[in-house]
Amino acid sequence: MFSKSRVECPILRKKIMSADEAVSFLQDRHTVGMSGFTGAGYPKSIPAALVKKAKALKELGKEFRINLWTGASTAPELDGVLAEVDGINMRLPYQSDPVCRQQINEGSMDYVDMHLSEVSQYAWSGFLGKLDVAVIEVAGIHADGRIIPSSSVGNNKTWVEQADLVILEVNDQQSIKLEGMHDIYYGTALPPHRKPILINTPADRIGEQYLDIPLEKIVAVVETSAPDRNSAFALPDEISTQIADNIIDFFAHEIKQGRLPKELLPLQSGVGNIPNAVLSGLEKGGYKNLTAYTEVIQDGMLHMLKSGTLSVASATAFSLSPTALDDLNENIDFYREKIILRQQDISNHPEIVRRLGIIAMNGLIEADIYGNVNSTHIMGSRIMNGIGGSGDFARNGSLSIFMTPSTAKNGAISAIVPMASHVDHTEHDVKVIVTEQGLADLRGLSPRQRAKVIIEKCAHPMYKDRLTDYYERACASKRGMHTPHILNEALSWHESYETTGKM
Amino acid sequence: MFSKSRVECPILRKKIMSADEAVSFLQDRHTVGMSGFTGAGYPKSIPAALVKKAKALKELGKEFRINLWTGASTAPELDGVLAEVDGINMRLPYQSDPVCRQQINEGSMDYVDMHLSEVSQYAWSGFLGKLDVAVIEVAGIHADGRIIPSSSVGNNKTWVEQADLVILEVNDQQSIKLEGMHDIYYGTALPPHRKPILINTPADRIGEQYLDIPLEKIVAVVETSAPDRNSAFALPDEISTQIADNIIDFFAHEIKQGRLPKELLPLQSGVGNIPNAVLSGLEKGGYKNLTAYTEVIQDGMLHMLKSGTLSVASATAFSLSPTALDDLNENIDFYREKIILRQQDISNHPEIVRRLGIIAMNGLIEADIYGNVNSTHIMGSRIMNGIGGSGDFARNGSLSIFMTPSTAKNGAISAIVPMASHVDHTEHDVKVIVTEQGLADLRGLSPRQRAKVIIEKCAHPMYKDRLTDYYERACASKRGMHTPHILNEALSWHESYETTGKM
Repeated sequence: MFSKSRVECPILRKKIMSADEAVSFLQDRHTVGMSGFTGAGYPKSIPAALVKKAKALKELGKEFRINLWTGASTAPELDGVLAEVDGINMRLPYQSDPVCRQQINEGSMDYVDMHLSEVSQYAWSGFLGKLDVAVIEVAGIHADGRIIPSSSVGNNKTWVEQADLVILEVNDQQSIKLEGMHDIYYGTALPPHRKPILINTPADRIGEQYLDIPLEKIVAVVETSAPDRNSAFALPDEISTQIADNIIDFFAHEIKQGRLPKELLPLQSGVGNIPNAVLSGLEKGGYKNLTAYTEVIQDGMLHMLKSGTLSVASATAFSLSPTALDDLNENIDFYREKIILRQQDISNHPEIVRRLGIIAMNGLIEADIYGNVNSTHIMGSRIMNGIGGSGDFARNGSLSIFMTPSTAKNGAISAIVPMASHVDHTEHDVKVIVTEQGLADLRGLSPRQRAKVIIEKCAHPMYKDRLTDYYERACASKRGMHTPHILNEALSWHESYETTGKM
Repeated sequence: MFSKSRVECPILRKKIMSADEAVSFLQDRHTVGMSGFTGAGYPKSIPAALVKKAKALKELGKEFRINLWTGASTAPELDGVLAEVDGINMRLPYQSDPVCRQQINEGSMDYVDMHLSEVSQYAWSGFLGKLDVAVIEVAGIHADGRIIPSSSVGNNKTWVEQADLVILEVNDQQSIKLEGMHDIYYGTALPPHRKPILINTPADRIGEQYLDIPLEKIVAVVETSAPDRNSAFALPDEISTQIADNIIDFFAHEIKQGRLPKELLPLQSGVGNIPNAVLSGLEKGGYKNLTAYTEVIQDGMLHMLKSGTLSVASATAFSLSPTALDDLNENIDFYREKIILRQQDISNHPEIVRRLGIIAMNGLIEADIYGNVNSTHIMGSRIMNGIGGSGDFARNGSLSIFMTPSTAKNGAISAIVPMASHVDHTEHDVKVIVTEQGLADLRGLSPRQRAKVIIEKCAHPMYKDRLTDYYERACASKRGMHTPHILNEALSWHESYETTGKM
């Protein structure tokens, strides 16, 4: 099976064509839903063909720009190359590409930064306009038309349902043994027809292994052979390790107080150095039978599944280093029993996040002394990446932890500021802030109590006195003691950075 | 039945005492969970007795201050009188009392402003510390110990479960015919033991009619006879009516576009003049068989239930004018079939809010041109009331609408500002903003697109040019075109108000 081609379905075999031919279905100003989540499972050939098409049209004096919807971030080979030819008009719901970022911040690309759990219902209900074409990477197509998803699920189910036309990329560099790892849930509905989603533990399967696409919608099948964007795994540095240690200590304390079970609660963790350090800390800490209900499976989680630290990991995508990918492929029969890939409206679903009582661990750009968190904007105006799923997990989970080094740019920026220049997670949602300096447990504290703890535990020593000074003068101003601020100074640290290069 | 006393249970009859005797169970620095939600169902006698006790102790040079937890706001007879004797050390999760507000803003009372759906799980899990005593108003106690809840449920189930001791107030001015209207759900659990909550429509009942309290926990029963704080119902003014009309037009448009069913989706609506005007608009608009899944049942909803505009209303409390209360009591057999009172962790539960696809309609203090909403703070520092349930509904519902007159203080304050001085609802959560000037539909728009729509549709004409000017100069500064801001001007409108009395 799948000995020669990954396209075994006779009807779809007839639709095999080159990417250059397939892009004839894509027109200027089309809204296109592409697969891809955190660099996994994005289409590998169509974007390059679109770039060729856009360049050719440009030479004829014609524009070619699409509205691009995905699961989350993709890769330079998708977001990057399309942005370089000014090929993206509007982008949602998340990006982390340097070229996109530049265009958004220069004002040539519109970006709608959405909670990842909300995208599918918004697309479905028509709030976002019409979806013209879906371009989806898959791992293979059975003779009877059953479609094996690729290394991410993301919004693929929604895109193929909502789009007029579907183009499939069948990538033979995705392990064919991913088959059986996915859980595509077909019980979603728009209100008032919604029913409970019966996931009670991260291990519960409630859907199908295959992506169901009406064959008549599929207008092109493109065969590809290219790996996902897999970046090498950086070993945790000293600061990440210290942040992780602070979190691990906190977990131990909470278990001792009887406020967390010894297997903790299902973990959600953002992608990157610090989350990987936390995972590695949990492994060293002797934890067993933890579970993860998260967006992305990173290197650290594979280790933990192997060692038994983690018994199951539910996510919507992989984000692996080349070494970890080799490990996954070599041991895929083992991992298939312990990994479930779901669509992102289920991996991030408020209902499930609340029921499971998820421990949400996400990064931040800055937090203010009262516990408001900015996850998206540099100095209040320039987008970094986007909110992603952090809001889905932080609002509805049982514990929302935000993690950051206490400074950035070699100390020129303090992660703790008088007033956040943008707020993505409000004072009502932020339960714990942790830096390499320490951990601030904000539960049950009033704003002024929070300010003292955040400055004391989280701020870098070189910014502590100035933060305390701001706080004390804000209190002394007697303008309002619930959340004391000095209005004409609240954003002065950011202003100073913009003009002098340091806060 | 209940011919003489509302306390029919012989064991509890023996515990009947005066409020002055009962407060002997309450000590300085106790944490006390009291009933009460939006002026309904709060204890009527114990607070006054506490005030007496506090005054007496003060004369002896002793402090008497409690940490006060409730469902939401209560009444001057609870929050107000206790605050007046400096009797509240810490307050959560919501208040709207003038004396409390003053003390919070002067810094003598700590206030923890929480999402109302989160309180019970936080109390239960021990995150907020120990609960010493629960003081709960009820409508009656059957011979076998079954307890009939009063005009609000709020956090009562949690308080009686978590507190060491329980004091009951049995109020014979609450209709005894409330019996059967409540739905107290005993299936909640802490994670990892949570199961789906099987509410699929606002009409679904999943619990018990009675509050279950271990009799041995009840140390005192106080008989009272006093009405809830019921304020007269103000007829909608011109501005409220115009805001309501804008929303009703929007609903009609959405139905026409096929994006909302003709029965809409379950409505949540804040309390006050504007929500009442919206309800009245829906009634005039000829809607039938709407449903409400909300926190509070106001006058307007009783009318709607009678006329068939509304088929069912689920809430956690009443908030009625004296006239409406008479109507409720006179026709309670009719209303009991159509009204369900639930605990607030169910009325506001993220799982249910998402499943039902609630249309959330809440007020705001200010919104900025990019769609960030401040619901709680005056000029960034002074608390008004609190976030209440607005975050529960706005984040997880299918449509979050925020409503406000375009100006306050006779035009001295613009509700639309360059940058919100505090953020309770982020740009990711605010889908519609409406003033008497018009309605801004922000779905699928980038921040700059939102700015144009909000200024055009929502701002008052006298502030429009200045907002446009700020926006255009922020864009021209080229400091970042995703969310253009001028840092040293972003809060200058608030500063101006503080120094000159107008923006």
